[in-house]
Amino acid sequence: MIPPETHLQIGSLLFDGLDQIDLTGPFEVLSRIPNATYRVYAKTTTPVRDVKGLQLTPDATLVEAPRLDVLHVPGGFGQEAMMEDEEILAWIERQVAGAGHVFSVCTGALLLGAAGLLRGRRATTHWASFHLLPLFGAIPVNERVVVDGNWVFAAGVTAGIDGALRLAAELRGDDVARAIQLYMQYAPEPPFDSGTPERAAGPILDQAKRAVAAITAQREATARRVAARLGIAASNL
Amino acid sequence: MIPPETHLQIGSLLFDGLDQIDLTGPFEVLSRIPNATYRVYAKTTTPVRDVKGLQLTPDATLVEAPRLDVLHVPGGFGQEAMMEDEEILAWIERQVAGAGHVFSVCTGALLLGAAGLLRGRRATTHWASFHLLPLFGAIPVNERVVVDGNWVFAAGVTAGIDGALRLAAELRGDDVARAIQLYMQYAPEPPFDSGTPERAAGPILDQAKRAVAAITAQREATARRVAARLGIAASNL
Repeated sequence: MIPPETHLQIGSLLFDGLDQIDLTGPFEVLSRIPNATYRVYAKTTTPVRDVKGLQLTPDATLVEAPRLDVLHVPGGFGQEAMMEDEEILAWIERQVAGAGHVFSVCTGALLLGAAGLLRGRRATTHWASFHLLPLFGAIPVNERVVVDGNWVFAAGVTAGIDGALRLAAELRGDDVARAIQLYMQYAPEPPFDSGTPERAAGPILDQAKRAVAAITAQREATARRVAARLGIAASNL
Repeated sequence: MIPPETHLQIGSLLFDGLDQIDLTGPFEVLSRIPNATYRVYAKTTTPVRDVKGLQLTPDATLVEAPRLDVLHVPGGFGQEAMMEDEEILAWIERQVAGAGHVFSVCTGALLLGAAGLLRGRRATTHWASFHLLPLFGAIPVNERVVVDGNWVFAAGVTAGIDGALRLAAELRGDDVARAIQLYMQYAPEPPFDSGTPERAAGPILDQAKRAVAAITAQREATARRVAARLGIAASNL
């Protein structure tokens, strides 16, 4: 826990083709952390579209961002292109070097991996990309939220809400997280039990795997290329 | 369930000061419903800010919206001002008259009430505004998701995700909803048990009530004024 009187700079990275709820789920929590400035940063301040078209506008550019105390990296299909984007990777690397806390959601973890920051870290990501974590030297942990020191990793998509509440507790204590949870009325009741590969029925899982097969193959090819450049592929494959 | 070959027009209402996850939670589900066009509508196409500052841009204006098959109405503090906005109320009324399905999240229910559409309906809303439902002739049901015929009401904020999955199942069958749930990795694990007034610790609930007291009082004053105009206040108070 950080002293309540210490003002926090919290920032989310926004990029084209992200999965919007990787950002907007945590937004609901991070924007309510007391004594903090929370802003959304991107390469430019023009609106970007999430993978399904939602238009989100950043508050400021990467260059304008102060040294962040908390860096939040979302994922989504668009992360694949960002894995070889030098401007994005350099920004992440610089911010992580100064940040007390790092929070990844979904395939945001692969972006942190592409910046060379996952070596030896216990981490998680979306179930369809989970097998790619070792390419970056990470230790994959099949849990919804994985806390590794001051790093919080959330699994796929909606896991960002659970991860953000964990992060809020790490930053400001359990009662602050509980108060935010109450405001958000976060007492989930999924109408079905189909939220993980382990729980979903066989045909639904097969269909889901087919639906993400192309992007997963593309992610893997990119991940192997990036990992080779980082010099960590050989020891992990 | 609607025949799979019937194309659906799905629309969310966007307005200034909404609670962003009332829209973005359902977005994740509604944007993945097969054979559907899903768009976000507002008075103008300029970006609006959610109550905590997230900038969201609508796809089109209210006037440009086709007759929707599914209307989604989010809530949030900004809903209070919309309760007396004739343009918004007339649009809601017209769309509901033509829509097969109506879906409200959080205090979006009060907007539907202000449009005179809740008389005799079983409904729910955010816990802090739950007591206002009878002002509009609704029957308050203290459940996370309330289904009343072709209407789906979700309680506060994050309940919209559960409600949207219920709606997806109503529209396209359970397996479609299960497949979306798997993609979203929606197997929530809240780190605390503090998501409802019934579960939250006394001091946290008291603090939360104090935090929303002013807006709740303002909502109630507006709700009473609107209900009186609709001629349904007298019989319900």
